Amino acid sequence: MNQLNVKKIIQAVETEAVYLSSEMLQRYAIGFEAENGCVVIDQTGGTLYTDKRYIEAAEKLLTGEAQATLYSRQEVLDRLASYKSVGISFKETSHTEYLALEKAGLTLIDIDAALAQVMSQKNEWELANIQAACEIAEEAYLALLPQIKEGMSETEVAALLEYEMRKRGAQGLSFATIVAFGAHAAVPHHETGNAKLRFGDEILIDFGCKVNGYCSDITRTVLFGDDGKHEEFKKAYQAVLTAHNLVQEQLVSGMSGKQADAIARDYLQSQGYGEYFTHSLGHGIGLRVHEFPGVSPRSESVLQDGMVFSDEPGVYVAGEYGIRIEDTITLKDGKVVSFMGKTDKNLIIL
Amino acid sequence: MNQLNVKKIIQAVETEAVYLSSEMLQRYAIGFEAENGCVVIDQTGGTLYTDKRYIEAAEKLLTGEAQATLYSRQEVLDRLASYKSVGISFKETSHTEYLALEKAGLTLIDIDAALAQVMSQKNEWELANIQAACEIAEEAYLALLPQIKEGMSETEVAALLEYEMRKRGAQGLSFATIVAFGAHAAVPHHETGNAKLRFGDEILIDFGCKVNGYCSDITRTVLFGDDGKHEEFKKAYQAVLTAHNLVQEQLVSGMSGKQADAIARDYLQSQGYGEYFTHSLGHGIGLRVHEFPGVSPRSESVLQDGMVFSDEPGVYVAGEYGIRIEDTITLKDGKVVSFMGKTDKNLIIL
Repeated sequence: MNQLNVKKIIQAVETEAVYLSSEMLQRYAIGFEAENGCVVIDQTGGTLYTDKRYIEAAEKLLTGEAQATLYSRQEVLDRLASYKSVGISFKETSHTEYLALEKAGLTLIDIDAALAQVMSQKNEWELANIQAACEIAEEAYLALLPQIKEGMSETEVAALLEYEMRKRGAQGLSFATIVAFGAHAAVPHHETGNAKLRFGDEILIDFGCKVNGYCSDITRTVLFGDDGKHEEFKKAYQAVLTAHNLVQEQLVSGMSGKQADAIARDYLQSQGYGEYFTHSLGHGIGLRVHEFPGVSPRSESVLQDGMVFSDEPGVYVAGEYGIRIEDTITLKDGKVVSFMGKTDKNLIIL
Repeated sequence: MNQLNVKKIIQAVETEAVYLSSEMLQRYAIGFEAENGCVVIDQTGGTLYTDKRYIEAAEKLLTGEAQATLYSRQEVLDRLASYKSVGISFKETSHTEYLALEKAGLTLIDIDAALAQVMSQKNEWELANIQAACEIAEEAYLALLPQIKEGMSETEVAALLEYEMRKRGAQGLSFATIVAFGAHAAVPHHETGNAKLRFGDEILIDFGCKVNGYCSDITRTVLFGDDGKHEEFKKAYQAVLTAHNLVQEQLVSGMSGKQADAIARDYLQSQGYGEYFTHSLGHGIGLRVHEFPGVSPRSESVLQDGMVFSDEPGVYVAGEYGIRIEDTITLKDGKVVSFMGKTDKNLIIL
């Protein structure tokens, strides 16, 4: 396993060299990030320029395709000026930094399209990190369930879940944890708040954590006791679960994002839930929790082996209930492999 | 108390209008942020453009100086094109977005210098949020101390502390919590890891949380039992604490960042620790945990009433120990007021 994507990047772009200053892109290139640092890549390999806070750790980690050296802005600019063209990510570069690079006389080319493509195809090291982030998320969820009690607030449940992830070694969160009780779950991006859990409430939890920068993303929906008023909810739950499972059974490498989305959407439509599935089936996942490829009714992106994305159909009835079931999945040998297998997706009644 | 900085911004810039798209700057202007949204300000007030996910909450919050309306990219661009010049933050704008705005025919002016200045002078609402974030941090620290046990890892201590902040209502972290045991504390930006706590170790904890986007930042250093080998450490601790306190006694509004820094630095120098105080005394704190003004040996910035920054002298002896004592403080009626008062800064031996 190798944390380096140095060769992959330089082969994907049409510039002589690549300059990466965002911490996320440093990590993508060399599996390491340094504040106020940068990575320069050319045909001979990659160089991390960093200060004395990081140099020792970087030198230990980097061998072969990449090396670490002490940062000098002038040295970096002089080196970049020796290339005919330098590729940078326009999206990840502030206009302030762009102006400074331009002033140094560089010919700058946007490599965002090439980066999105190569970053979508994960290597073994990246897949292993995503797997680890998914395992921590599932184990934390399993540890959380027996701790949920009547009267707890959404924020308290989120705090407990985050603690369970963190103590299992999560570096941080993929995004702000969503915990929604009752009808709050009907809002797909509900802001976790002070609502208190009551008997019979449904609980929707959308969460994830990071390992070596790589994200997991998972959603589970459960009932906190059965007050006998959830017939519609239970029917919809089965429909969402079936749609979620159908994607994992029927999706094959080579399909477009649109075709993948249609597997879930057509089924939910056939069950009368078409208008209640108000978002896309999924999104690419990596160092960013939302990245290329899109898995939506408009996405022409071709889903290929080694890509990682979410399978998250949902049904939302305003003021009533919301259901979302989400795994982080990948494609291997043409078929779907889910990173999640520790948690039961059949409806749990706590 | 008012969460709006709309008038303050338009008065500080020389452009006819201001366009803020980063979530952090939206929050600064109107106390609210929306993904894929933006705020436009002109002499008549501010407008948040946002989608249907946020519009209800935004309309409820915004009255007077600012209002919310449904987002349409074309409408925003047409409106901006009607102004002679539009101020944006070059630092907070990606080059991709800059190009799109430029293509729409706008005359774009960098307002970063003006923004840094106005953002450094906090209004009552901002100060109240920072106070709340500081109180949560201190209370969480007090709840953490009795839970620290021999054999715990740095990561476990960080996880517990973060949980204690989160369950008290913290929205998230100001930055990745630093927990350093023993000689790890000699590295000012130590990466929290799997080291296990042993009797006699020192523990350095640098942490903070956010309330309504506003940050707290605090560092405490304690001993986990006294193994009788800490005479040098204890001497240095008293020197750092005295330097920290001297700043709060002697710093007055109108001093430069350099003069503030010198209060602590001169004292530590007089005690023989000059070369071991390897960083600046402090940094501005607000929606960003590091912002204007600098409080360093090179900073000519004038410290004024309403500014918020850290007072964090430290002494680091490589391979031996590290000590840092940090409060988030402000200036009021010419004098220092600390946001922190709940925790004892005399050396605690657990």
